[in-house]
Amino acid sequence: MEFPRITPPDQQAHREAVARHGQLTKPVGSLGRLEELGVWVAACQGVCPPHPFVRPLVVVFAGDHGIAAHGVSAYPSEVTRQMVGNFLSGGAAVNVLANAAGAMVRVVDVSVDWDPAAGTAPPPVTKHKVCRGSGAIHQQDAVTEVEVAQALDAGVSIADEEIDRGADLLIAGDMGIGNTTPAAVLVAALTGAEPVAVVGRGTGIDDAGWMRKAAAIRDALRRARPVTTDPVALVRTAGGADIAAMAGFLAQAAVRRTPVVLDGVVIGAAAMLAEELAPGARRWWVAGHRSAEPAHTLALEHLELDPILELGMRLGEGSGAVAALPLVQMAIRVLTEMATFADAGVSGPADAPTPTR
Amino acid sequence: MEFPRITPPDQQAHREAVARHGQLTKPVGSLGRLEELGVWVAACQGVCPPHPFVRPLVVVFAGDHGIAAHGVSAYPSEVTRQMVGNFLSGGAAVNVLANAAGAMVRVVDVSVDWDPAAGTAPPPVTKHKVCRGSGAIHQQDAVTEVEVAQALDAGVSIADEEIDRGADLLIAGDMGIGNTTPAAVLVAALTGAEPVAVVGRGTGIDDAGWMRKAAAIRDALRRARPVTTDPVALVRTAGGADIAAMAGFLAQAAVRRTPVVLDGVVIGAAAMLAEELAPGARRWWVAGHRSAEPAHTLALEHLELDPILELGMRLGEGSGAVAALPLVQMAIRVLTEMATFADAGVSGPADAPTPTR
Repeated sequence: MEFPRITPPDQQAHREAVARHGQLTKPVGSLGRLEELGVWVAACQGVCPPHPFVRPLVVVFAGDHGIAAHGVSAYPSEVTRQMVGNFLSGGAAVNVLANAAGAMVRVVDVSVDWDPAAGTAPPPVTKHKVCRGSGAIHQQDAVTEVEVAQALDAGVSIADEEIDRGADLLIAGDMGIGNTTPAAVLVAALTGAEPVAVVGRGTGIDDAGWMRKAAAIRDALRRARPVTTDPVALVRTAGGADIAAMAGFLAQAAVRRTPVVLDGVVIGAAAMLAEELAPGARRWWVAGHRSAEPAHTLALEHLELDPILELGMRLGEGSGAVAALPLVQMAIRVLTEMATFADAGVSGPADAPTPTR
Repeated sequence: MEFPRITPPDQQAHREAVARHGQLTKPVGSLGRLEELGVWVAACQGVCPPHPFVRPLVVVFAGDHGIAAHGVSAYPSEVTRQMVGNFLSGGAAVNVLANAAGAMVRVVDVSVDWDPAAGTAPPPVTKHKVCRGSGAIHQQDAVTEVEVAQALDAGVSIADEEIDRGADLLIAGDMGIGNTTPAAVLVAALTGAEPVAVVGRGTGIDDAGWMRKAAAIRDALRRARPVTTDPVALVRTAGGADIAAMAGFLAQAAVRRTPVVLDGVVIGAAAMLAEELAPGARRWWVAGHRSAEPAHTLALEHLELDPILELGMRLGEGSGAVAALPLVQMAIRVLTEMATFADAGVSGPADAPTPTR
């Protein structure tokens, strides 16, 4: 997979947004991170003031993982396909949060272990399907060379489809029982962290499950270490089709100069792969939140991204990114709607009185 | 000022909301702080699931401070009245953020140093006016005994007016050049902190201004220490009419069982006074954010409130609380709109596979 060279967001619009913040009726910097977010959006859109996002979209990448049969998750694998149904009927957390934030949700079956005979999901869900589940990575490769290429292509195609349909802000979400295990392995492989530093509770495993997960991550990491410098081989060996599709999607968003709000640890692992595949892509991303998974903090540090929210969320689905979306929209509206000192006839700091005591 | 005994939010609705979180299609606790916020709203409303707030309201309390003439602020005092005009024409940050969050904004002139002959502001702004500015607290009392009683009454009356008109979530905001100086003094007086621990940059003073502000806080604190156990005397001596009105407003919100999202350091100081005046009121409040002002962290610790956002904001006006409002609304919608495991036919954790390796 070869991505074109990533060009950074627009520096002229960035400078104009910084300057505009200095003219609005508030002390410079007093809106903190909201000011930085507004500047980032202006740079991504190449225009100041930026315009509110009109079609923010969450794409939930669903896939199963063979490792889930080995006691690393609190939930059975069939929950992945059951949750695809829940996304389609609008009952999942990400649907509710997206409704509140004014975003749409699309779910894509990349690698759900789903009986095709039972398949009633519509084409936008199934058209990019790569395989029925990824392999148990502590014992075998996640996917084949052909499948990993298909999965990366799927992610690129989905980004292209949605941007062509007008999506102007993208969020990638994950759904897959067992998927924090490959995510933790990928983060450990790319950061050099020890297995114990990346093992989290996922959906909420007990202590015995935590120990099984730690052992699985250790074994998978042993298989992953020889290929850490090759992101495609790495995700093939120790990731999964769904994670490869997310990586393709995140990289292609940057190719298409479309901003992204990142979610938690699974998307964080995919983002690290995407940054390897398309260096500089991370300048088109902000981190929506810091998840409770320890590997996510390592991923954020590696990507040099500072999360907007720290709410102890650990659901996936894109939920943490969607929760941050209203703040990004607010950051835009500050730049577009606030009065300037001149407009409002408000004095600036230069007019402060001479101190007396 | 005597407030009725504060009763806590409803424990039955609290328990029902906790139980409902266990039935929704997500691992228990996986939405982190959003789950806690939803439970808190359910308890405040006394019903589960809770209903989205239909009339969230920001009241900005405006007042001048004599200390502003002594070189403790980067801006001149006339900015207070200029900003009242900006709030009325909708150009200030809090207007823009409130529009984005679906909240209304009311500005109240409690103690702006404004020439009455020039006064063209409508009655909702001016009807509760107490005085033209509070005194320079390093040298004199902020207000008289009569004025402090009027100011507390003003806050109570505004809360009553707005709750009677249907406000179901309240946010107090501040506008007043120099007001972080009395706020810092009040926080230091009530927590026992040293002056240097509470001095912040406010709207952005330079190092010389910081030193003047530190000295002013030290002098005002010397005047405040003898009355720290009497919240009315304390706000009269070292606070201001605007801060007293905020305290009355926050206490009365609790009396009226109406939830509040708190803003930054000035509202934090007023909240500490309100909790002294009406013990238990803080159970009706959440902290919207942690401001960049050091005294705010002390206030949050004292009130045992954990901020929702940490975005380095330091504007006041209620802006940090309004920024958190979409997350509170999302927290409600999770409880009202998400599918349960039973509704969606999704398996729970009890159905996890027997581990094999």
